[in-house]
Amino acid sequence: MVLFSGSANEALARAVADRLGTTLAARVLERFPDGELRVEVNASVRGQRVYVVQPTQPPAESHVFELLLLGDACRRAGAARLTAVVPYFGYARQDRRATGRGPIAARVAADVIATAGFDAVMVVDLHSRATEGFFSVPLEHLSAVTLLAEAIRSRAHEGSVLVAPDLGAAKLADRYSRILDIPVATVHKRRVSGGEVTVRQLVGDVAGKTPLIVDDMLSTGGTVVAAARALLDAGATPDITVVVTHGLFSPPASQALRDLPITKFLTTDSVPQAHTGLPVQVVSIAPLLAEVIRRHAHDESLGDLLSHE
Amino acid sequence: MVLFSGSANEALARAVADRLGTTLAARVLERFPDGELRVEVNASVRGQRVYVVQPTQPPAESHVFELLLLGDACRRAGAARLTAVVPYFGYARQDRRATGRGPIAARVAADVIATAGFDAVMVVDLHSRATEGFFSVPLEHLSAVTLLAEAIRSRAHEGSVLVAPDLGAAKLADRYSRILDIPVATVHKRRVSGGEVTVRQLVGDVAGKTPLIVDDMLSTGGTVVAAARALLDAGATPDITVVVTHGLFSPPASQALRDLPITKFLTTDSVPQAHTGLPVQVVSIAPLLAEVIRRHAHDESLGDLLSHE
Amino acid sequence: MVLFSGSANEALARAVADRLGTTLAARVLERFPDGELRVEVNASVRGQRVYVVQPTQPPAESHVFELLLLGDACRRAGAARLTAVVPYFGYARQDRRATGRGPIAARVAADVIATAGFDAVMVVDLHSRATEGFFSVPLEHLSAVTLLAEAIRSRAHEGSVLVAPDLGAAKLADRYSRILDIPVATVHKRRVSGGEVTVRQLVGDVAGKTPLIVDDMLSTGGTVVAAARALLDAGATPDITVVVTHGLFSPPASQALRDLPITKFLTTDSVPQAHTGLPVQVVSIAPLLAEVIRRHAHDESLGDLLSHE
Amino acid sequence: MVLFSGSANEALARAVADRLGTTLAARVLERFPDGELRVEVNASVRGQRVYVVQPTQPPAESHVFELLLLGDACRRAGAARLTAVVPYFGYARQDRRATGRGPIAARVAADVIATAGFDAVMVVDLHSRATEGFFSVPLEHLSAVTLLAEAIRSRAHEGSVLVAPDLGAAKLADRYSRILDIPVATVHKRRVSGGEVTVRQLVGDVAGKTPLIVDDMLSTGGTVVAAARALLDAGATPDITVVVTHGLFSPPASQALRDLPITKFLTTDSVPQAHTGLPVQVVSIAPLLAEVIRRHAHDESLGDLLSHE
Amino acid sequence: MVLFSGSANEALARAVADRLGTTLAARVLERFPDGELRVEVNASVRGQRVYVVQPTQPPAESHVFELLLLGDACRRAGAARLTAVVPYFGYARQDRRATGRGPIAARVAADVIATAGFDAVMVVDLHSRATEGFFSVPLEHLSAVTLLAEAIRSRAHEGSVLVAPDLGAAKLADRYSRILDIPVATVHKRRVSGGEVTVRQLVGDVAGKTPLIVDDMLSTGGTVVAAARALLDAGATPDITVVVTHGLFSPPASQALRDLPITKFLTTDSVPQAHTGLPVQVVSIAPLLAEVIRRHAHDESLGDLLSHE
Amino acid sequence: MVLFSGSANEALARAVADRLGTTLAARVLERFPDGELRVEVNASVRGQRVYVVQPTQPPAESHVFELLLLGDACRRAGAARLTAVVPYFGYARQDRRATGRGPIAARVAADVIATAGFDAVMVVDLHSRATEGFFSVPLEHLSAVTLLAEAIRSRAHEGSVLVAPDLGAAKLADRYSRILDIPVATVHKRRVSGGEVTVRQLVGDVAGKTPLIVDDMLSTGGTVVAAARALLDAGATPDITVVVTHGLFSPPASQALRDLPITKFLTTDSVPQAHTGLPVQVVSIAPLLAEVIRRHAHDESLGDLLSHE
Repeated sequence: MVLFSGSANEALARAVADRLGTTLAARVLERFPDGELRVEVNASVRGQRVYVVQPTQPPAESHVFELLLLGDACRRAGAARLTAVVPYFGYARQDRRATGRGPIAARVAADVIATAGFDAVMVVDLHSRATEGFFSVPLEHLSAVTLLAEAIRSRAHEGSVLVAPDLGAAKLADRYSRILDIPVATVHKRRVSGGEVTVRQLVGDVAGKTPLIVDDMLSTGGTVVAAARALLDAGATPDITVVVTHGLFSPPASQALRDLPITKFLTTDSVPQAHTGLPVQVVSIAPLLAEVIRRHAHDESLGDLLSHE
Repeated sequence: MVLFSGSANEALARAVADRLGTTLAARVLERFPDGELRVEVNASVRGQRVYVVQPTQPPAESHVFELLLLGDACRRAGAARLTAVVPYFGYARQDRRATGRGPIAARVAADVIATAGFDAVMVVDLHSRATEGFFSVPLEHLSAVTLLAEAIRSRAHEGSVLVAPDLGAAKLADRYSRILDIPVATVHKRRVSGGEVTVRQLVGDVAGKTPLIVDDMLSTGGTVVAAARALLDAGATPDITVVVTHGLFSPPASQALRDLPITKFLTTDSVPQAHTGLPVQVVSIAPLLAEVIRRHAHDESLGDLLSHE
Repeated sequence: MVLFSGSANEALARAVADRLGTTLAARVLERFPDGELRVEVNASVRGQRVYVVQPTQPPAESHVFELLLLGDACRRAGAARLTAVVPYFGYARQDRRATGRGPIAARVAADVIATAGFDAVMVVDLHSRATEGFFSVPLEHLSAVTLLAEAIRSRAHEGSVLVAPDLGAAKLADRYSRILDIPVATVHKRRVSGGEVTVRQLVGDVAGKTPLIVDDMLSTGGTVVAAARALLDAGATPDITVVVTHGLFSPPASQALRDLPITKFLTTDSVPQAHTGLPVQVVSIAPLLAEVIRRHAHDESLGDLLSHE
Repeated sequence: MVLFSGSANEALARAVADRLGTTLAARVLERFPDGELRVEVNASVRGQRVYVVQPTQPPAESHVFELLLLGDACRRAGAARLTAVVPYFGYARQDRRATGRGPIAARVAADVIATAGFDAVMVVDLHSRATEGFFSVPLEHLSAVTLLAEAIRSRAHEGSVLVAPDLGAAKLADRYSRILDIPVATVHKRRVSGGEVTVRQLVGDVAGKTPLIVDDMLSTGGTVVAAARALLDAGATPDITVVVTHGLFSPPASQALRDLPITKFLTTDSVPQAHTGLPVQVVSIAPLLAEVIRRHAHDESLGDLLSHE
Repeated sequence: MVLFSGSANEALARAVADRLGTTLAARVLERFPDGELRVEVNASVRGQRVYVVQPTQPPAESHVFELLLLGDACRRAGAARLTAVVPYFGYARQDRRATGRGPIAARVAADVIATAGFDAVMVVDLHSRATEGFFSVPLEHLSAVTLLAEAIRSRAHEGSVLVAPDLGAAKLADRYSRILDIPVATVHKRRVSGGEVTVRQLVGDVAGKTPLIVDDMLSTGGTVVAAARALLDAGATPDITVVVTHGLFSPPASQALRDLPITKFLTTDSVPQAHTGLPVQVVSIAPLLAEVIRRHAHDESLGDLLSHE
Repeated sequence: MVLFSGSANEALARAVADRLGTTLAARVLERFPDGELRVEVNASVRGQRVYVVQPTQPPAESHVFELLLLGDACRRAGAARLTAVVPYFGYARQDRRATGRGPIAARVAADVIATAGFDAVMVVDLHSRATEGFFSVPLEHLSAVTLLAEAIRSRAHEGSVLVAPDLGAAKLADRYSRILDIPVATVHKRRVSGGEVTVRQLVGDVAGKTPLIVDDMLSTGGTVVAAARALLDAGATPDITVVVTHGLFSPPASQALRDLPITKFLTTDSVPQAHTGLPVQVVSIAPLLAEVIRRHAHDESLGDLLSHE
């Protein structure tokens, strides 16, 4: 097994390598003076099972392209099987044509990865399960839910309530609920009349409870902010925990989040965590990825590590 | 333009042909004594834009196979462009791996249609928008919502409430809401604790209101039955209307539905409507399909006829 | 090696597993209430060579679709190599366009199997050798002729004659002849004039001889019935043996066959043998399939087990 | 429409162009000093329907390669639709694996034509109908039987008999029989015992009759020679006519054929006819090809011109 | 015909539209707050020939991805034919594996464009002609040489000499020479011994002559700087003109270039020209692109506009 | 590992087999009486890594076709991985469209090899490095330069000069220079004015030096002859050595070469060496191919054996 890292999250890749008792294979990944990427693989991959770790958070295009060039290099150098390990799969939210004449960007991203010669792809907590069907190559859909749930177990007591900040997160909240054995509430955007006026309504009891908001990702934080406000309006305890697999914290995110009584953000290192000034705690998915890669490389069953709901 | 029908819904295909001022092209579609399908196209398709109307309700496999054989026959006979018109796309609900080792059946169905040589596909109200991304060929995603909304306008008054019987139908209910200008309620399955115990909770006011339950399809009716009961428990008026694009009414459906105060089922002829003893009113999508096919065949914009939400 | 069975012939698959000293891998194969197939693979196939046993006799479409879904499930679950074992390959007789505008159904069947991800296919006694060329993936063409010939050796004596009931079976009869060392006669449909009038003429001596009619398959039995009558007219002994690899015995078959002095039907279990009231003796191809699969899984030469003539 | 000719049969291509009232488009087709082909297209093909006439008789490899290079040149130069007109399709007889480890050469030939970018293929009287299924692109299977039958009508009288020189030609003889309204006899190679000893037996009455031997092609003439001898042994009149679509007359052919009482060979110009010293009469298929190309280029139905039996 | 522009060079695309007497079709091209591209096509493309103008200068990855998303959007919206107009094709210089384990980045770029559904590609003055063979779809290779040569004709007199700054530009200099009828000199990097020591040697007379350095592109300018120094050392007149199709002027470029007696840089608008402080004169390729697109859209021959040497 | 040879260079293949301590696998490679190739593989390849040695010198089409048929045979017989070893890759010089409407013949050759099922290709000293990008499958680009350089070391002394006979050979000469540590001169065809008049000019000192002309191939020898004359005109010692990887010596080659003071031609056995009457010394590449195949078959790194410049 040979493990490469793109530039998108070398710390994670290194942690995975450590857990596997190996080191990242040497490669060059730089830019020519005119700005074009220059990629070179400096380890023999002939006949090897090769894994390239590269989440595709913004700048997604560059990260995707690095992945394609690394893949092409390994394929032409004789890699036996080529797996893209993409903990955060960028463009995943663009999984449908927003209008009749938009692209399906997630499908484009899936297609170009296959074009570059990858035989398999690993992702963590896709925004939508149906995106699996965009891939022609086998996709291993992993989940950080178990890891994150364990990490907040100490904060989850009988006065807690899991909160899905929108309908898309409802199933995710159920999964946390089954592990932590605490009830779920969902923030429901409801159209009052046929116009564009919507109100946020909470489904489930939150008054006097300590909310644990869970979602697959936090980008600008708009959804979490709105949910937090709805929770406070509904009488929830102003001690909110936010749990997301992918903590992108895109620039406008921090200020609005800082103004709310969110005492902890729990996320993973699927993308690198810059300093945001927020109380972020990071749970590493390196052990998960390492175990999955180890089994995958040895053709062992991944059964219990995959995400199915 | 040449229009063929498979055997899955000849009445609909004929109605489409009528609206287009044409007739269905001749074809043989029978079975050999040993049970194998025998297909023959008896019209010249050379250089033509060919449309094959064939929903794939159960027995879905036979309906899909007919479609494949008709497609192969037309392609080999020189059709210029081949479009599968699949008003009800079977296997659409199997859009993800139910477990780590299941198939993605909707992708398989999409793939075999492309394998048979179809250049484009038309569907009506897919179960999940993301399924669009399973198709490599262009997909025209049509909607019967406007037609159905108009058909229930007389039943939609200020005492009415649109009801999404589960979270998956919430966006659909919003679309009806924007047309009919009445509020929305959603039946929310809520996990009380971490166990398997769930309760149905209504989001939105339904007490004393007349419910219009909307969904993309009704198969065995389980979801509608549960929703109806929740509505009645919540004090809704026992005069329920059920509106679904695809009315499959699979065998166990009728009895449970008959026991409830559902005064009207509104559906389309996307699949043939057998006599069920239920108060079913059918709105034909033939005019919609005819208009879409006409424009498609003449390379006119479909913009306003497509489903985007 | 992992061995699955579809629902088309579980008894055969089980017999193959027995011979291989293994058991069939667990899978779910049922129908949802609305009639759609539900498939789930319940064994780890990661990195394994997987074999799916599924003849595609009628209802061929369902059997094909099961095969596709099992294939897709195994491929997505990481099977290293996926082989479809299709002892009876349905639609094989539709290997040409019956008219200028028919499909080539056998090619469609071959293509969809490849689309689902199968890397190799095994079949037994295809109706026409040329169908091998329809497959882009390697095809192992096996034959039950040796097994069947041995099974009738006791009935093949110097007074016997092998009979090809039509020209298509002439080469098959030659193969039996080489094994059993008895002469061949062929029933030849001859056009007397340019019209549609044909007579059946026997090529070879049959008067006073005991006929062994051989063919690749028996479906409705029409060809065998006509041949048997021609044989009797030509003075053959009214003690006829019929030997076919694939005994489909499609419904209208039995009565006409029962009225003739056919004392034994010898066939294989390539498709399940229902009770027909006819004197059918079944020779199992399970040992053949088991040996082929064993060697295939171990990359041993199949040379002497393949059909080449 | 733009019509090109390879070097395999320029006379035929020119005759086709004449019938279409056009001229062959200019192209360079020569060899570099080192022997490599040099191809250049000297006419604008952008947006045109392009037809390349090139039978692939031996040296088949060179003829195929010319076709590929002409196709690639036209495709890259913007041809709208590219059709290979291959009156004689070389390697057609290698349509199955002769042994378990042979190639399927006819499939390879079909595949490389598609690889070069041809969208459609036209052939005349393929050796085996099933070869149609080897092509993924639409194949127009034409027949010279009508033309040839008319050309021998004067020689076909009530004392004539159509003779299929082997089983493979039996269906072809039937087609002639339907047009000329004279009976058919077939030369049947019969295995006497299980050994390699075979005898030729005539099915049908030939004594005192004037034979018209029909076949798809005549290469070295071995089959025709054996059939002619069997006919004479059976008392046929020593005035034999031989009718074949493809008259290759491969070198060893002439002597043995000259020693027999064959008074006329009727064939087409699907391949160029060199002087053989035999009494060969050539019927041109140029009018047939011209009409097919004309209709094809104008998207008119080819129905009655195609070969279906 | 519908013309879109990506964001890489809207001015050029607008100029092309002007020349064609049309306007750029409306589209949205923005970024979501998290940085992902958002693309939407706001014009009907159904049945249209669509052209997307997008050079792929750095940041090449973003420009390529925009192109892919615009292509996917148009394809799914029913475009009849989709052409990528890529005046500057980024990654073109990475047309070989720099080492045994590098990628062939230019092939990756070519492949992903085809994956997104483009049917044809137009480029201007590729770094290497052989890159044409990387594309499976037809490539129209245009040249700005005629335009540029005319633009410097006034500076080209009998005392001038065309200079190829390295061997890769020698054929380009010949093309200018044929148009301007002035001699050529080439800067030749020569290895003195087997070590890494090289000297630049001028082939051709330059002493006392006014040099016109020609190349396909100028990025950081290193090659031009070295050539200019060699020219001056060899006694050339210190009044140098530099002519390049693609003037990228990558950041480190300007200073070194400014220190040399280069009195004019002539380039095109294949990429946007920022202010560099250098005496740059821009010749627009918009008329060329407009004419090529016009003919391409009307299926007229491009013959005399293509680059062949 | 199983090693086959086509007919293009059996001596080389046998030498490779010897070095590998094995023998060539049995195969039939003959022609049917009508001239079509007949191929049969007579060794078990199931699950094996198969190597087919076949340069494609003229008659290139036949050699390519043999390769395709051998490949198809091995693929269908279950080869695990199929590598085409093509020491001389014919049509390599046709790597661009000579005119706007020519083919890219080298791409066609690369594509058909992939179509036949080869998973990898090995070549030696391609005419142009960029041709690597024509292959979608991994290409191992080997070089005979090291071997040839060692073989002429005794002739390379301080009075020697390496000569690139045209610009295309300049990089090759540099590679020899680095190994042999002697300087390089290049024959430069220079356009004197804009017309077609060119002169050959030598870059580098050759007066009184002994020239070693190096090139990738020698076909008709025109380039070498012109270079030799230019060298003599420039005062080089009339004792010339010519070193080329591929010595095709196409028919017109010998006479002009014989008239010059060329005392030795050094080449390899990449193509068979017929007797030319010239002082040709052959260095075998069999050890190189054997070592590469050995490592490739054992998944060892080829790093130091590949050609990268």
